[in-house]
Formats: sequence, structure tokens, C-alpha cells
Amino acid sequence: MMPIKHIKIKKGMKAGEIVESMGDMGFGARKISEAAVILEKMWKDKDCKVFLGVAGAMVPGGMKEIILDLLDRAEVFVTTGANLTHDLIEAIGESHFIGNEKENDERLNKEGIDRIYNVFMKNVVYEKLEDFFEKNWKAFQGCRNIREFLWKIGELSGKGILWKCYEKKIPIFCPAIADSGIGLMVWGRLAGGKKINIDAYDDMKEIIDIAWTAKKRGVIYIGGGTPKNFIQQSLQFSKGADYGIQITTDHADGGGSSGAPLKEGVSWGKMKKNASFVDVNCDATIALPLILGYLKDKV
Amino acid sequence: MMPIKHIKIKKGMKAGEIVESMGDMGFGARKISEAAVILEKMWKDKDCKVFLGVAGAMVPGGMKEIILDLLDRAEVFVTTGANLTHDLIEAIGESHFIGNEKENDERLNKEGIDRIYNVFMKNVVYEKLEDFFEKNWKAFQGCRNIREFLWKIGELSGKGILWKCYEKKIPIFCPAIADSGIGLMVWGRLAGGKKINIDAYDDMKEIIDIAWTAKKRGVIYIGGGTPKNFIQQSLQFSKGADYGIQITTDHADGGGSSGAPLKEGVSWGKMKKNASFVDVNCDATIALPLILGYLKDKV
Amino acid sequence: MMPIKHIKIKKGMKAGEIVESMGDMGFGARKISEAAVILEKMWKDKDCKVFLGVAGAMVPGGMKEIILDLLDRAEVFVTTGANLTHDLIEAIGESHFIGNEKENDERLNKEGIDRIYNVFMKNVVYEKLEDFFEKNWKAFQGCRNIREFLWKIGELSGKGILWKCYEKKIPIFCPAIADSGIGLMVWGRLAGGKKINIDAYDDMKEIIDIAWTAKKRGVIYIGGGTPKNFIQQSLQFSKGADYGIQITTDHADGGGSSGAPLKEGVSWGKMKKNASFVDVNCDATIALPLILGYLKDKV
Amino acid sequence: MMPIKHIKIKKGMKAGEIVESMGDMGFGARKISEAAVILEKMWKDKDCKVFLGVAGAMVPGGMKEIILDLLDRAEVFVTTGANLTHDLIEAIGESHFIGNEKENDERLNKEGIDRIYNVFMKNVVYEKLEDFFEKNWKAFQGCRNIREFLWKIGELSGKGILWKCYEKKIPIFCPAIADSGIGLMVWGRLAGGKKINIDAYDDMKEIIDIAWTAKKRGVIYIGGGTPKNFIQQSLQFSKGADYGIQITTDHADGGGSSGAPLKEGVSWGKMKKNASFVDVNCDATIALPLILGYLKDKV
Repeated sequence: MMPIKHIKIKKGMKAGEIVESMGDMGFGARKISEAAVILEKMWKDKDCKVFLGVAGAMVPGGMKEIILDLLDRAEVFVTTGANLTHDLIEAIGESHFIGNEKENDERLNKEGIDRIYNVFMKNVVYEKLEDFFEKNWKAFQGCRNIREFLWKIGELSGKGILWKCYEKKIPIFCPAIADSGIGLMVWGRLAGGKKINIDAYDDMKEIIDIAWTAKKRGVIYIGGGTPKNFIQQSLQFSKGADYGIQITTDHADGGGSSGAPLKEGVSWGKMKKNASFVDVNCDATIALPLILGYLKDKV
Repeated sequence: MMPIKHIKIKKGMKAGEIVESMGDMGFGARKISEAAVILEKMWKDKDCKVFLGVAGAMVPGGMKEIILDLLDRAEVFVTTGANLTHDLIEAIGESHFIGNEKENDERLNKEGIDRIYNVFMKNVVYEKLEDFFEKNWKAFQGCRNIREFLWKIGELSGKGILWKCYEKKIPIFCPAIADSGIGLMVWGRLAGGKKINIDAYDDMKEIIDIAWTAKKRGVIYIGGGTPKNFIQQSLQFSKGADYGIQITTDHADGGGSSGAPLKEGVSWGKMKKNASFVDVNCDATIALPLILGYLKDKV
Repeated sequence: MMPIKHIKIKKGMKAGEIVESMGDMGFGARKISEAAVILEKMWKDKDCKVFLGVAGAMVPGGMKEIILDLLDRAEVFVTTGANLTHDLIEAIGESHFIGNEKENDERLNKEGIDRIYNVFMKNVVYEKLEDFFEKNWKAFQGCRNIREFLWKIGELSGKGILWKCYEKKIPIFCPAIADSGIGLMVWGRLAGGKKINIDAYDDMKEIIDIAWTAKKRGVIYIGGGTPKNFIQQSLQFSKGADYGIQITTDHADGGGSSGAPLKEGVSWGKMKKNASFVDVNCDATIALPLILGYLKDKV
Repeated sequence: MMPIKHIKIKKGMKAGEIVESMGDMGFGARKISEAAVILEKMWKDKDCKVFLGVAGAMVPGGMKEIILDLLDRAEVFVTTGANLTHDLIEAIGESHFIGNEKENDERLNKEGIDRIYNVFMKNVVYEKLEDFFEKNWKAFQGCRNIREFLWKIGELSGKGILWKCYEKKIPIFCPAIADSGIGLMVWGRLAGGKKINIDAYDDMKEIIDIAWTAKKRGVIYIGGGTPKNFIQQSLQFSKGADYGIQITTDHADGGGSSGAPLKEGVSWGKMKKNASFVDVNCDATIALPLILGYLKDKV
């Protein structure tokens, strides 16, 4: 057995050094280090296709650049409509703001400010989104499925996550796209009699094919939700993932997918029995900057 | 100020009596009672349209009858593909089983058993699902959107949640339907060259219209996720909800929608500033039987 | 494998019936049922000595009667100074009140109201406590240890938890008694030059002897904390507990005792390897009324 | 309003830089940054006396050096018996080990290994503790209260947390000292007829006097529990704390002290209404290395 070594913080200490020291600690700190090491292996394994699933509203939380960095190594990206809408909001020139969760919500409502925990957004962004879709509506006519539709938004928006996925041809999946501000924009056009036809199932073949044909598979789950579950089910027909890291604040006992430990996936064949995987129970806005700090120093 | 009264449990005490007593307690118990009272008001308010959002995998947890009961008063039902797939699995004669979360997942995999926390399912159910969709594929050809597609499954399955929604014409929405066993079945057919065209956005108009035209709106959120968020966004163009109960084990600090307190919705205009609402932080499989016990005694 | 049966709530349904049905469900509901069944076994096993540990501030939450009922079968009671202080506050005629966690704390402070989440208490209770200890100070002179000191308070207070422990001669342990309103009262007297000498370690022998000499041991942990840990360590020299239920909202991953699953105790020898035990992740003010409802119907 | 800025992780990035960037993010990341800034202010405010409360079993988690660093600025230290016992175990030459929470507890028990989540400890350490107390028993005869007793252990152990408190004359309080391995060692001697008399209340005067006489007060709560509560109650007779940071994974809704937000202390007068304070919901083994990384760069 290897002894626990107490982390010693020094002036000017690098995040990567902290993560390395965490590997000799216990509890959650060690999980951070294990996740960093598994991510490094996944990153360096040329045979491994990386499936990145990002739930929640990571973009308003200030995590866009981290997602962009992770996309450098992702062959598949699955996320929520919320993340994509907030990405688009910034791509068209709007911002999110430092807010306060103790603020009076009634007052915020009067001032036209929407609150996302301790982040604020001006409600007026929806008018800008309207303009974007109104102006570009014709461009979406040719899109058959959600992935094509999202790449098209990326092509038109010219920056951010959607743009990078389009530019680098990273397949991006968002099964619940209707459940988002982007969905609302499409509804607004449809309600106005403007047609479009995006098939709900058509792009499933792509993600399942990638899972099926990959030599090895690695999964990164930020926050669970639909993104995790959609990747998990695409793995059910493969031989299972070889690497996995999951960062969530949910727990197993409620029975939901978001809190289910990766180990549970072994019973389903979604995770290989001898895979390298770890569950990190932590707010991703805290855990990921640390883990990425380590990764940048190593690759 | 009203004094706290200590609950006194008696032999043969009814669940409804316990919930009533909880109204004089503190902490989580009081939240259960507040939720029950708000649900009763919502139930009895003839002007109120009820939006029921159920995330997670409540059906394997043994919550199907409770969902069926809640559907008696729901004008809108939004749920995950997981709940619908597990409902269909039971409708076609298969079961979920008492399991154990400490079981060896590698062994379960060898025996063809999929684990959902402390619930087991035989992997062979997927073959039965295949048969169902193979046999009925033609019936889905006319379905334009997800709601129509789900009602059709309900019509064909003949029992359970999907059937009740079909039979009672309760609009059922599942934006992320592709992310489910049902999605996999459609993929299987599409991969075999069998066509279908389900539009991802087409049924948004229905839910937004109901929200828009209702005199009053009540929301019931079990577990957050896409179901909560999809209802929330449909309310953004209404005057906001008048009643709300949310049962989840998530917390606000992670910034996600599932853990966001209903109060946050006031800033967005999704919840009226003077609405009756309460957040219950509890496993829904524990909280809902209690709350429904109270409701059955009152209505 | 036994199939999951969906709970069906009926009008007038008893809490005990709900708990029984929960035994056929999954997720947290099943844990409630397992805890109830283990508690029933523990209760009926004549050879079993029951160690009840109650953390938190259960008395302000409205749980006094439930604790009193559990004390009918407990041979050892370990709790926090908070529970005992709030019990004494009520014994001397003061109350706790229905409050609101969203209230302005600055305003409450001005009005002399102390907040415990959604429960309020008038700050003036401390003056009543002062009177009690001032009047009775001489009576404590003979107390050597914390258990004797607490029984003496019980004898003098004439009602509530402390009184019942005194009256029924249930050994009551509170290692951190200094950390409480009662502690503050003693400090007030000591600061005024009034002597007392309560030994911090003297009553450990009693609890360890009970653990050592019992034929069988059952543990009930509400909320973890010092009460759990103090019982756990007293078991370290016994053959370990035969029965155990733990109700807490903490989780294992932080590494703390409160969230550690009972299984971890097997490594320490505090829990027998073949013991009947279950961890319930739930607010105790919700879980215990249900479990006790079942128990009252069975014994 | 200030816009959210997305954190950009660079190769060789310092922990302090990450924390600084987190101040422009949302969700938990911003809380880390706010805690770091408040800690820096507290640290630099010459008028402020710092009360450090550390619950849980931070020493087995690898946090000893961090606690030692924080003690450089603490005027008062309150902790659990667990932390002090594990500190003493290392001071007398024993270790904690890298473990695995999925290990078979029955097997560990057979091999004499005690598990603390993912940390292991050899059960044989208790024999070494026995030797230490047997050899030094006489030295404790003069100790009247828990603080004196703990300083004496520190003097004899010659290294670690207890030693530093003794050496630097930092008052160390541990109200529940009986609830720990150290408590068991005292019990063992008492059971053998060897006397000692440590008063349970005697050292309360010291902590309350420090709180009372300080110009300003700052509190650092790691994990809640008795350490938090004992500091909180010592502040009740002061004008309240001017600075506060709390790092815990507990939440408010259960009603316990560990999860109560610092704001609640305003109602009690334990926290000044205009104090600088923040609640960080995170595993302390992850949050504190980051925060200390920032602090070391700033002071």
C-alpha cells in the first residue's frame, strides 16, 4: 500500500502540480487526479475516439473556452440546447453577466434580467436571436436532421462552440434541441407559417456508427442529463468504452442516469469491465479547470 | 407566529394524516405538506391547466400507477424517453425486478441483466421491443411529430402511460425521444432502410398554445431534466405559472435547471411573482406516495 | 428475481401500507421499506440492545414525539447538545415556530428571532434557560460526568426527552455537550465563579460496557455527526452490530463519518459482516414518520 | 453589470491564476474565487482574529499541511477528535494509505485494515496509540481541561497539528474529544483504574473571551459539524463575525448546522449584517488547495 502524502501548497504552484499531488491524497481530491490521468491517457491513445457529453448551462458559467479546448480531441459532441443557445447568444455579440443568487427575482423580472443561479442575462437577447433566425431562415431549408441544422447555425454564427464544430466537422448531437431558446426560435418561425423539416431520429445513425467502428472509445460526461444518456446508449451496440470520466454533483441513490456511477454501465455493456474510469463528485466549473490545467502541462 | 407541533405517529395512521401533521413541523417535512396543499389547490382550481414533467426513470422505480393517477388531472405531460421506453416494456409484457446496487456488474453483464441502481432488467427486453416496432412499423408512417408518434405507440400498446395519454388525448411531449430505447428501435428500422419522418420541432406549437391560452397554469416537476425545462420555456410566453411544486434531489449551487428553485423562474416570467410554489428536496419515490396519499383523501 | 410492483395509492391508505408497498419498488422508496423491516426485527429481538444516535436539530424540526417513541426501545441514546437544549427550551415552556427560510435575516435579528432554516425561535429563550440554571445550580454539584449531568437536567425539567431518559434510566450521552446552549449556561455560571466539575471522559465506560456485554446490538443513526461516531467507536470493542439503519442526506464521497455507508463499518469490525443494515438517503423528518408508521402497525 | 469571462486554461497556469479567473465565472467557480478573496482580506486585516473550524477526517484525506498553513493565521482552532487522532497517529510514525472505496470490507476486516472511504489505515495503529498514552500517562495528570490536555499531547508528540498548536500557543478546542481514538485511549486507562480529570466545560471561557475581546472576527468553516457550531456559539456574545468562509457539501434544506448558509447566522447575531462571507459547496480536499494556492501568491 502506498502512503497518503499531504499536499503542500507553495507560492506560484501550478494547477498541474496540485492535481499531481492530489493523486497521493484521499477523498475527492484523488478523484480529480484520477480523472486527469485517465483523460491524459484517453487524449494520447491514437486508437481512441472521444465522446464528449456536456449537460447543464456551462456556457453562462464561463466554461466556453474549456469546452472549445476539449473539442480539440472530441470526435463526437453531445450537449443540451441550453449550452448551444447560450453559445449562440455570445456569438451574435451578447453577454452573460456576473450576478447574485440572493437578488430579488421580482425586481430582476421588472428590469428584464433572467437569472441562472449567480449569472444574469438580459431578456433582450431573445430579440437578437429572433433577428438571427429571421435573417438566416432560408439557409436552414436544406437541413434534414439536427446535426446538419446545428452545423448550419455554426457556419452562420462564425464563432464559438457551434462554429468550431462546423469548422472542424465535429458531429454535434442535441436530441432535445426543441427544448431550448433555439427551439423557441424555430417555433416562432413555424408559427409564422415558415416551414422547415428537421428529423428527430435521422442523425442517430452517425453517432452509433462512430461508436461501432471505433477501435477504442473514451467518454467524458459533464453533468449527466441527456448528453450522457445519449452517448451511453450509442455505446450499447459497441464493445463498450475503454476510458471514462464523469463529473457531476448527482448521486446514485435517486436512480437517475445523471448520478449513476460509470460502473453501472458495465452491466449494460456500455463500459468495458476492465476500462479505466472514475466518477468525480464536484461542480464542473471547479473540477474541469484543474483537470485541464494538468492536461495542458502534459500534452 | 404559529408554534411547531411535534408529529405524533399512531397505530393505523393514514398517510394523509401524516402529511397534514407535517404542516406543523419544520425542515423537509413541512415542504412535503406545502407541496400537498398546493397540489390540492391546483387540482381543484377549474381554471388551472396542469403541466406534469417527469424526468428520470420513474417507471423502473415502481412509480407507474402514481404517474397514471397524476395524469387524471394533467393537461400536458412531458417526460423522458427512458420513462416511456420502460412503460412500453411493461405494456408488452416484460418486467423490472427487485435488484441490488451492490451486485457485481460484470456478473450481471454475463447474465444479461441491466442494472438501474437497485432495479434489474433483462437485456432480452430489447428483442421484444424490436418485435413490437417491426410488427407495427407501418402504423407510424403517418406520424408527423413526436406527440403523434407517442400517441400511436400508446394506441398500439394498449396499456400503461402511453396508452392512457393516447386514450385520454393528453398531449405528451418528449423532446429527446431519440435518446431512449424507443429511439434505438427507430434507428434500427432506419438503418434497415425503413423510412419514417418525425419532425423535431413540429409539436412545440401545441404545448406553447396550451400555456398561452390557459387562464391559469400549474406545474409539477419530478426530477428536473428536459421535462422541467421544456415546460418552463413554454411558460415564457404566457403570464407565468400560478402554482408550482418541484420534487428533486438536486440543489441550486451547480447552476443547472434541475436544481434551480422555482423562485428563479420569477425573474424569467415563467412563474408569477405571487404564485403558490414550493421546492421539495427529496427522492420522488418517497415524497410522491405521501403527497398523493394526502391528495386522495382530499379530492 | 421478484418483479417491481408499482405502488397504488388509495384513499385512506395507511402509512404502514405505503411502506409495505415500497418494499416492491426501487430507488429510495425501497430503502425506506428495508429500514422499516430491519427496525421491526431489531425491535422484536429480545437479545438486541438498541443504540439510538440522533444528530442535527431534530427537536425544532418537530421530531420530539418520534424521538420519545424510539426511546421506548433504546438502551443507549446519544445526541447533540442542540437537540437537548431545544428539548429543555420546550420543557420550560417555550416554543419553536413555523418560519420561512427566505425571510430577511437582518430583520429577524432586529426582532430578536433566531432562524434554523424554516423554523424560528425567540432569542429570549436564553433568558429562561439562564433562570433555570441559576435556580437549580446547586443540584448539579454532585454530577461527575455528562450522563449524570443530563439526567439531573431531566429530573428537574419534568418533561420531554431529557426527562424520559432520567425517568426510564436510559443512559444518555452527549460528548460535545459544551457545544450547545446548555454549555453556554454552564459557561455563564463558571464565568460567575460558580463551580461544577463534569468529567469529559468519565461516562465512556458505560456505553462501551453496554456494547461489550450485549448479546446483540442494533444501531439507529439519524443524521450522522458525533452521535453516530460515538456509537460506532463504542462498538469497535464489541463483536459489531447485528442490525443497523442510517438516515442521512450526506454521501460517502466527502470522506466524512456522517455520509459513510454502514458497510464501511464492516472493515472496522463495528458492523458484523452478515448484519442486516440499510442506508436511507433522505431527510429524517420525512423518512422517520413513514418508518414509524409502519412500526406502530407491526408491534 | 460585469460580463462573465470564460476561463482560458494555459500550459503552466498557476492555481492562483485559475482562482483569479474564476472570479469572472459563474456557479461554484465564482464561489471559490470569492472565498479566496475574503480569506486574503481576513488574513491581511491586523484587527481580525481568525477562528478556524475543521470537521471531518481531513488528516487521512491528505490535508494536514494545509491545516498547518492555515494555523499560521488562526488565533483559535476547533476540530474533531478524528482529525486529532489521525494527526497523532502520523506523529508517532504511522501512516494512512491510498485505498479504494470499492474494496471488499469483509476482506479488509480480515486483513486488519480500517477503511475511510478511499483511504486505508492499519488497525494496528491503535496499539501504538496505547503505547503512547501508557508511557505518557503521568504527564496528563495536571491537565484540567480539554485544551490543556490537547496541548500536552502536542508537546509530547513533537510534530504535526497538535504540536504546532502547543508550540505556537494556539488555543485548540475539541468539545467532543471523548468521541475519538484519543477518547478511547483515555477510556482504556480509566478502565484500568488510572485517574485523570478533564473538565468538559472549563475551556469554554477561553474561546468566548477571545471572541468577546477581538476587534474583528473571521471564521473559516471546513465541513461544518461540532467545530462550526462551537465557534458559532462563541460568537453569539460578540458583535458577530466580520468575515466568513464556509466549505461544505451539505445543504440548507435538512435544517442542520453543517449545511446552514452563513447568512442564517445574521439572524442570531453570529455574523454581522454587513460582513463579507461566502458559502462554497465543494469537497474541501478540492476547494482548499485551490484557495490556498491563491492565498500563497498574494501574501
